[in-house]
Amino acid sequence: MATATAITHIANLVTNDPSLASAVGAPGAGPLGLIQDAAVVIEDDRIAWVGETSQAPATDNRIDAAGRAVIPGFVDSHSHLVFAGDRTEEFNARMSGRQYTAGGIRTTVAATRAASGNVLHANAGRYVHEALRQGTTTMEIKSGYGLTVEDEARTLAIAAAHTDEVTYLGAHIVAPEFADDPAGYVDLVTGPMLDACAPHARWVDVFCEKGAFDGDQARAVLTAGAARGLIPRVHANQLSYGPGVQLAVELGAASADHCTHLTDADVDALANSDTVATLLPGCEFSTRAQYPDARRLLSAGATVALSPDCNPGSSFTSSMAFCVAVAVREMGMTPDEAVWSATAGGAAALRRSDVGRIAPGARADLVLLDAPSHVHLAYRPGVPLAAAVWRRGDLVTDLV
Amino acid sequence: MATATAITHIANLVTNDPSLASAVGAPGAGPLGLIQDAAVVIEDDRIAWVGETSQAPATDNRIDAAGRAVIPGFVDSHSHLVFAGDRTEEFNARMSGRQYTAGGIRTTVAATRAASGNVLHANAGRYVHEALRQGTTTMEIKSGYGLTVEDEARTLAIAAAHTDEVTYLGAHIVAPEFADDPAGYVDLVTGPMLDACAPHARWVDVFCEKGAFDGDQARAVLTAGAARGLIPRVHANQLSYGPGVQLAVELGAASADHCTHLTDADVDALANSDTVATLLPGCEFSTRAQYPDARRLLSAGATVALSPDCNPGSSFTSSMAFCVAVAVREMGMTPDEAVWSATAGGAAALRRSDVGRIAPGARADLVLLDAPSHVHLAYRPGVPLAAAVWRRGDLVTDLV
Repeated sequence: MATATAITHIANLVTNDPSLASAVGAPGAGPLGLIQDAAVVIEDDRIAWVGETSQAPATDNRIDAAGRAVIPGFVDSHSHLVFAGDRTEEFNARMSGRQYTAGGIRTTVAATRAASGNVLHANAGRYVHEALRQGTTTMEIKSGYGLTVEDEARTLAIAAAHTDEVTYLGAHIVAPEFADDPAGYVDLVTGPMLDACAPHARWVDVFCEKGAFDGDQARAVLTAGAARGLIPRVHANQLSYGPGVQLAVELGAASADHCTHLTDADVDALANSDTVATLLPGCEFSTRAQYPDARRLLSAGATVALSPDCNPGSSFTSSMAFCVAVAVREMGMTPDEAVWSATAGGAAALRRSDVGRIAPGARADLVLLDAPSHVHLAYRPGVPLAAAVWRRGDLVTDLV
Repeated sequence: MATATAITHIANLVTNDPSLASAVGAPGAGPLGLIQDAAVVIEDDRIAWVGETSQAPATDNRIDAAGRAVIPGFVDSHSHLVFAGDRTEEFNARMSGRQYTAGGIRTTVAATRAASGNVLHANAGRYVHEALRQGTTTMEIKSGYGLTVEDEARTLAIAAAHTDEVTYLGAHIVAPEFADDPAGYVDLVTGPMLDACAPHARWVDVFCEKGAFDGDQARAVLTAGAARGLIPRVHANQLSYGPGVQLAVELGAASADHCTHLTDADVDALANSDTVATLLPGCEFSTRAQYPDARRLLSAGATVALSPDCNPGSSFTSSMAFCVAVAVREMGMTPDEAVWSATAGGAAALRRSDVGRIAPGARADLVLLDAPSHVHLAYRPGVPLAAAVWRRGDLVTDLV
């Protein structure tokens, strides 16, 4: 390991790998696979070794964590970053109790269509970088502000320049031109638009909600995408009860996102499936809406992920740490559960085993926290705690 | 102005000086004294000029804000930063629903007494610097984890090394040694401890609450401090209704802090006084308690300040931006009001006219936000938006 780098004296290391923690003899490692006074060796873009500092192999480079904590890079499985335009005044009016004739998603669609590719690329890059500085090393990016064949394909090509986790969301809302012909829009989304978009994407998504797409339309979108090799994920049960969650489970979607309004049958369906429930508390924070009940899902046995849902309308935060803190305050999660959901949970929602954990062979995506424990992500809300971030083995921030 | 620095092309400048904004012809400046496409000239440690970019005088140095916003440095009027020890597990247990025999403030008292002065000094400096990086350029610091003559005096001397705004809070809780003799402890706090502490402090504070100090005891502490030239401020009405707010107003305290449980008479008293109501939402966030009703206070005409109440027990955040976001989400404040309360409001709570505003003659304490508007502090919760911070005219962070 002559060219390797060791990070040593990590007070608390979150591996998300209980069997690894057990193998190195860590007591009380729990689901987070905690190891105390740990060390991690990075070689190229991978984790090469994990254990206690006293057992760490010799390496050329050593970084002393000096009693701080290390967690896997955050895995953000839900974002809408390819957009243009400004909706500050819409937010301001909403939170100030003032009337405002907001166009909602349509406002962003108009601005996005009008923007150059360079502007959209730079804007997406800005938010990816902003998230990276805060410790997010894997990020899914959706389309959904183009809503024409050309604009959706352009959006996905831009997203693909920033991440491997690209989601085709032509079915975000019915495009304005199809206001009187939603069936015609579904035909477009499942036909020519899918043809243009499928080569750029890994996932297909649909906003299954009153005012967007009903259960039958959502099924048509997801099955058409699946037929082209895209794996389904669903915006489900955000604003009201509905068929989204059941559809997601039935179609084997990787994730049902939002999950705010759930029947007992919805909770059971999630608990008895591989579909992850991805909760997006930034959205409820910024719209003064009811939070999803993470405790209920966890108690039933469902897998829960957390994401900020970064978008200019309902949730313009990129902060995974903020979501952890709010999930603990408002959604009945313990700090351990919330940190797991923001790392391993996100990886599960993206069906990735190479990220969201710190174990030999995993991608070297790590966050050194300016804190002795991952619990500080909830204990110290709003404080920027990412002292250093590694992605694919590269230190992408200054060491603070 | 040959040695001056101009910050130009500020998309939105919060001056907190409506008459200044009006004088430069800014339309719709409002209570924040907003100026669009503004410039600020800094000379030494003071603001030398404020106006529109097109009118800015020539200076040797120019920094282009490039369409971003500038606000006054945050003024944090309530913190407990001189402490030692770790209470992570107490927080973790509380938020995880686990039993934990917590010593509360007493835990921190024991650890603080046992710590060396160097450790306490370094710890306080760490959190002052952490807050500064986030834009807090003025910070009050209290004692209250010493509770002996020697330990309280030591605490205040350490606080005074970090700030001019030092508060004597010997009456935080009854010292453990006086558990059976609270009257004896009040005698100590108003006698020998006050003698030792008064030279280091500007303010005297008391925790007026069931289990801490009742109205008569609080009055004794505050009047004794006032007789030594210390200006009163009060921890009032945090956990229950009580006499704290009325006492604060009666004694002309600069601020009544917490104000969570208020009768109509309490609200009226604050509204008809110069006593600022300082709200500390980090505390309610981290203890899952009911938030104070800022809207009610503002509607009645009270002056409201915001602070994180940074302390290792009930609220371990140093983030003013987080408080702004929570105040908007939970306490009925508009983004404009919350930003005012986190800057000018804090200055009012510390009876300072040289900070909390950007106007000629004021201290050159400014935050360049990585956002086009101050509204983003609420719109983008958890995102570190301080792109650059100036304190007393010095750029104390890298320009991002």
